[in-house]
Amino acid sequence: MTMEMFIHDEIPTDEVDRREKAVSALADSVRELVDATIRSTVPDEELAAVQAEVAALAARLRRQQLPGSAGVRYNSEGRSWNWGNAVVGRGNAVAPPVDIVHDGFGNAHAEMTLGAAYEGPPGMVHGGVSALMLDQIMGETASGFRRLTMTGTLTLRYRRPLPLGPVRMEARIAHEEGRKITVEAQIGVPGQDAAVEATGLFLIPSWAPIDETEEGWSRSAEG
Amino acid sequence: MTMEMFIHDEIPTDEVDRREKAVSALADSVRELVDATIRSTVPDEELAAVQAEVAALAARLRRQQLPGSAGVRYNSEGRSWNWGNAVVGRGNAVAPPVDIVHDGFGNAHAEMTLGAAYEGPPGMVHGGVSALMLDQIMGETASGFRRLTMTGTLTLRYRRPLPLGPVRMEARIAHEEGRKITVEAQIGVPGQDAAVEATGLFLIPSWAPIDETEEGWSRSAEG
Repeated sequence: MTMEMFIHDEIPTDEVDRREKAVSALADSVRELVDATIRSTVPDEELAAVQAEVAALAARLRRQQLPGSAGVRYNSEGRSWNWGNAVVGRGNAVAPPVDIVHDGFGNAHAEMTLGAAYEGPPGMVHGGVSALMLDQIMGETASGFRRLTMTGTLTLRYRRPLPLGPVRMEARIAHEEGRKITVEAQIGVPGQDAAVEATGLFLIPSWAPIDETEEGWSRSAEG
Repeated sequence: MTMEMFIHDEIPTDEVDRREKAVSALADSVRELVDATIRSTVPDEELAAVQAEVAALAARLRRQQLPGSAGVRYNSEGRSWNWGNAVVGRGNAVAPPVDIVHDGFGNAHAEMTLGAAYEGPPGMVHGGVSALMLDQIMGETASGFRRLTMTGTLTLRYRRPLPLGPVRMEARIAHEEGRKITVEAQIGVPGQDAAVEATGLFLIPSWAPIDETEEGWSRSAEG
């Protein structure tokens, strides 16, 4: 990942905030639709009728659209936005989205609810979904939004099944040496033993500075 | 995971096939809507108008719905279905969905396209999405749909960024001893070196038979 991968989009911050609200509201309704599509037992004819309307709505949204993915954008006021990210992207209905709280540099946690759309074994969170969520929080923890990091190795130990419902994850920098950062993390039912434990080795590429002083531009750019 | 986690749902196979078509068609349109929501640049007012219609459609689908997640179902004809799975579920718009081809026992591959909804670093597949996809194909490869397996440990080595677009993954059983099965897998741009390599240790729980002879009931139950 290089600086050039981030898009300088000179929109005033208050406009970005307004757009974020509109995008989030739509994506929240799309999340509801995703869940309802999985769980609905209405007759086939009704599914077909709804399908036609969904297709028409997608076409309306596509009248003006980006040529590709959303990417990560920033303005010169230091505001950045990453609405398309598969874990934290507010505009991406694949993302729960997760709201990661950084408790100072090197420590983060998040609580969220994973519903029917994240199922693997019956009634349980997909093991790969736990990996997806952990990769995001670990990457953010390694970078702290102040340096570029890339995932080198990720090791996940599955201790027990994780039921769909409320979950909590935590991550912390365990060790750091030069361009290598080791992050430890876990995910599980809040207040219970971890369901999945993870260790990740993150790398600062040789062409990137070891510590960025510019803040903000890489915010939420991990993943 | 125990046999009791799978739901015996005595629907004739031809009816299951018909329902699968209707559910898949709707979920495909919802996938389009997810993508369009990420990429749309129509005015805020239009987003709000579409949002209200999406909410109304979700409410229509919810008039009759399952109390929870979709789970894995089977009938006594040996047909099983797993439409809610986060990777392979045809009814789950979070899933691409991936169509995993099993080339005989212990070998599998899949090709799919990962679009804007699977983004991590700008223009790239989210590292955790690669983990999610690999976990599914590795779990299916370990079980071969003929025995119960659970993910024990999963190690992912990130070799190079994986651009959004067409991807291919492959998995094979590398080693097997008693209740321990080692699976190796990789994901990358078709025809190019792997972007992510994975090794997984899968376990057959002590209470489960080492080799199931009943076929079909656990089909697509991994994850």
